[in-house]
Amino acid sequence: MEQRFVTFTTDFGASGHYVGTMKGVVYNINPSARVVDISHEVESYDLLDGALTIAQACSYFPAHTIHVVVVDPGVGSSRRPILARTEKYFFVAPDNGVLSLALERAQQASVRNITAESYFLHPVSRTFHGRDIFAAVAGWLSTGLEPSDFGEEISDYVRLSIPAVKAAGNAIQGVVLKVDKFGNVITNITPQDVPQLFATSPPPFKIAVGKREITSMRNSYAEGALGEVFGILGSMGFLELATNCGSAAQALGVAKGAEVVGSGKWEVGSGK
Amino acid sequence: MEQRFVTFTTDFGASGHYVGTMKGVVYNINPSARVVDISHEVESYDLLDGALTIAQACSYFPAHTIHVVVVDPGVGSSRRPILARTEKYFFVAPDNGVLSLALERAQQASVRNITAESYFLHPVSRTFHGRDIFAAVAGWLSTGLEPSDFGEEISDYVRLSIPAVKAAGNAIQGVVLKVDKFGNVITNITPQDVPQLFATSPPPFKIAVGKREITSMRNSYAEGALGEVFGILGSMGFLELATNCGSAAQALGVAKGAEVVGSGKWEVGSGK
Amino acid sequence: MEQRFVTFTTDFGASGHYVGTMKGVVYNINPSARVVDISHEVESYDLLDGALTIAQACSYFPAHTIHVVVVDPGVGSSRRPILARTEKYFFVAPDNGVLSLALERAQQASVRNITAESYFLHPVSRTFHGRDIFAAVAGWLSTGLEPSDFGEEISDYVRLSIPAVKAAGNAIQGVVLKVDKFGNVITNITPQDVPQLFATSPPPFKIAVGKREITSMRNSYAEGALGEVFGILGSMGFLELATNCGSAAQALGVAKGAEVVGSGKWEVGSGK
Repeated sequence: MEQRFVTFTTDFGASGHYVGTMKGVVYNINPSARVVDISHEVESYDLLDGALTIAQACSYFPAHTIHVVVVDPGVGSSRRPILARTEKYFFVAPDNGVLSLALERAQQASVRNITAESYFLHPVSRTFHGRDIFAAVAGWLSTGLEPSDFGEEISDYVRLSIPAVKAAGNAIQGVVLKVDKFGNVITNITPQDVPQLFATSPPPFKIAVGKREITSMRNSYAEGALGEVFGILGSMGFLELATNCGSAAQALGVAKGAEVVGSGKWEVGSGK
Repeated sequence: MEQRFVTFTTDFGASGHYVGTMKGVVYNINPSARVVDISHEVESYDLLDGALTIAQACSYFPAHTIHVVVVDPGVGSSRRPILARTEKYFFVAPDNGVLSLALERAQQASVRNITAESYFLHPVSRTFHGRDIFAAVAGWLSTGLEPSDFGEEISDYVRLSIPAVKAAGNAIQGVVLKVDKFGNVITNITPQDVPQLFATSPPPFKIAVGKREITSMRNSYAEGALGEVFGILGSMGFLELATNCGSAAQALGVAKGAEVVGSGKWEVGSGK
Repeated sequence: MEQRFVTFTTDFGASGHYVGTMKGVVYNINPSARVVDISHEVESYDLLDGALTIAQACSYFPAHTIHVVVVDPGVGSSRRPILARTEKYFFVAPDNGVLSLALERAQQASVRNITAESYFLHPVSRTFHGRDIFAAVAGWLSTGLEPSDFGEEISDYVRLSIPAVKAAGNAIQGVVLKVDKFGNVITNITPQDVPQLFATSPPPFKIAVGKREITSMRNSYAEGALGEVFGILGSMGFLELATNCGSAAQALGVAKGAEVVGSGKWEVGSGK
């Protein structure tokens, strides 16, 4: 049996039997598999949050890791289960876009519709495909089966995008993608959108978010002055709004989806 | 050393050193053991929640897995530690009924009072038997010891039942067993109680829960109309009340323990 | 490759990609390592909470375990990364005192400033050293490298202490160190501070905390009468205030940092 890594990213939460049951299914098929939890606290039903989580974490794992992602509001409906292979990894998930960001970052990706029901747990429930389909398929895949054993290649799988940043002239408009456990506010704005903002000495700028206007960029959280909310290039590659040892989300009074509107002494493209 | 699986189901929560300490105890005794978290978010002191969690998850694991369950309001008192063996698994837990649902589903179960203090961590605290007794015993058991090495068989271990459904004529009365992370409301009503409710075309019915009356059954969450709260056969085998991409518990204004009262064009038994 | 244990204790929380990413980094360097989560729910930025968690859990793990602790409000600033070796374990953490309690309890400890950047992930971010430095160093250390491969020994590493108990005559004054998931209130008072309080038959005493006065000690949680808040020697070695099957923190109306003021028919030292 192969010692393949199988990661789990779900919105199932830590209570209940759901996550433990999925681990049991994998180990029952392949006791040598090594299941690793990435997160089970994806926001309920939130495909973009799931897509961001797996896209950020996946590339740090060893080659041939099988990444299972179950954020699945359409469970039991006609949405397809899919198995994707990139140059380095395998992914098992519902066909709802939750793999989009991970697949976009890969050099190559082939996606298959999982139809080989002989690898499912039977009877297949209509409410818990994480157990009956996704964990079971990951377990079998970890034993060394080929993606082609699970179904035919498809090209019309669902794509999902990060909301686009609007940038024109000296103005920029984005949104809050998520708030992390510390209260850091992660936006969709990247150095590609406004290179000047992330320069060593950015020009004067204002970014309005919730109750406050941010006018400074910092290189580390610890550089922030007491109570100051500042911008910083976060580890996810996005503009984050943060405050030193406190919650920026609370200071700004914002949550996921809030508008981020900025302007500065720069010229940027006419949108993308 | 054997590569035996050891699962943990507790109400200890994710903060603090409790869960990590228990893992250390197992690995220190048997570095080849493979500890798997089922859940540490059983509701504090809630034996039924713990019993449901392990009963749902246990049967998906490989044979010879050792399931450790620590929901233990009586820690340090005279309640006994027990070791149960079924045809497929081992269970280590306090004798308070938390294993009842798992043992009921087994073909055969023998239960022993753990008395072999030489396998405990000493001094044994009065407040953390998860560390000093249950994890230690699971660690030793995972090395290949026999249940008989830990104590004598008993028959008077504590039993716990799911609250009974009352069914008579065209009426049925149950309770909410738990609310999951999505807000799905899991009741104690099963297809054995009211087969007609779970039929392909159920007869007209009404189920009153909290602020609403439910009058429809769905086969998958995604089939629900916007805002509709409906019934569905959940993956745990119980009637769940759910809403598509939202929290039914919030829509109904109910929590664990709430009454569920239904009636329909059917005739059911005179209670059980 | 060695099957070394690597534990994680962080304040990153369960949501987001942070913890999963750190696991990937370790496994990518050493697929035979065995990562174990102690807790990711250390209170944000709370060095003492992190220090208590690892100090409690670390000694239960097998010899040669590598304990990674990331509570790191100074990430990206000039605070140093350190690698400590005790007679039994390795520790990797920021130099901010978070290892203090674990190192204090060891017989011997040597601490090094990690400077060997060749073992870091590049580019090193200014916001996520858990990934780029601490997990990477732990991964390499788990392959069998020596601490001396990572940097020079230092003696001026940051120390952090548990707030001191004031004890004089028949009075004692302490603080609440933390509240656990059950609502148990863990103070900084130990049997060394007031041996008489923890005696088999303690003399009459009063401990004022929040809204209540505690006048009884119990040996187990289950001994408490309905609604009674009592003192107990907790598994961490501190005086805990608890209530049987309920939240003492709620009954007392207190949180971390609250004052604990006691007096009894005893004579204790003039402070420490």
